[in-house]
Amino acid sequence: MIEIERKFLVCSDAFKTEAISEKRIVQGFLNTHPERTVRVRIKGAEGFLTIKGKSNESGTTRYEWEETIALTDAEDLLKLCEEGMVAKTRYEIPIGKHKFEVDEFLGLNKGLVVAELELKDEGEFFEKPIWLGLEVTGELKYYNSQLSKNPYKHWKK
Amino acid sequence: MIEIERKFLVCSDAFKTEAISEKRIVQGFLNTHPERTVRVRIKGAEGFLTIKGKSNESGTTRYEWEETIALTDAEDLLKLCEEGMVAKTRYEIPIGKHKFEVDEFLGLNKGLVVAELELKDEGEFFEKPIWLGLEVTGELKYYNSQLSKNPYKHWKK
Repeated sequence: MIEIERKFLVCSDAFKTEAISEKRIVQGFLNTHPERTVRVRIKGAEGFLTIKGKSNESGTTRYEWEETIALTDAEDLLKLCEEGMVAKTRYEIPIGKHKFEVDEFLGLNKGLVVAELELKDEGEFFEKPIWLGLEVTGELKYYNSQLSKNPYKHWKK
Repeated sequence: MIEIERKFLVCSDAFKTEAISEKRIVQGFLNTHPERTVRVRIKGAEGFLTIKGKSNESGTTRYEWEETIALTDAEDLLKLCEEGMVAKTRYEIPIGKHKFEVDEFLGLNKGLVVAELELKDEGEFFEKPIWLGLEVTGELKYYNSQLSKNPYKHWKK
């Protein structure tokens, strides 16, 4: 299916008091080509395999296929992945009619906090919480597949 | 799981009279890196997603993960694949206690016919039918992921 998503930096820790869930995510990539990424993820105690296509010009929409897989399979497949695992804590935060997913990155991406919002159409209105910062939708360097190869720590600030 | 497989060229059409099934296969690759290939396959009316690791030194054993996926998903995912679809007809041929899978390639790989045999261990005995030719186990150029990029037609004979 086609996913419509917008992505923002997060400018304060205030989101944490509003979070309804918090899960550890570890993921690796079997492929980090921007036209077709294949991701192996362990989220809490669940395994996932996710394939994403190329984004449209604005970076808002992207083909996405995902299925749950056995946790032991996910563990095996993570070992096959390219170097550069991405680890983060994911918080779910309901704001008005929407749900923000905020990723607080760990390891070499520590310091980076990003909020994602899934929408039904590109122009859909949504409430902006006070901790929401600059929009970075479609910026390649914020893709997790790119963070695995060029982590936040190595960016020129 | 770890697959143990040996691969041979096929030197005559005689296998066709012994075949118990014949199915058309079309497949593409989301990734053709020898250390981790991700394959999308349509076989008859079924979809499959397969992830393979790197072979051992002799080319006989390789980690393999496979799940069936919806046919419509397989069709969508094929569109995401790298250039160079591989098409072939697969014949199943029981010989003694084993089952050979013979792939007769089509398109740019026409002329190439390859037999594969799955074994329980590397040294297992198996009956060799008269149409079985040279062993090519572990030869990279016969990997389907490589045939998609460098098809048989372009090989220097």
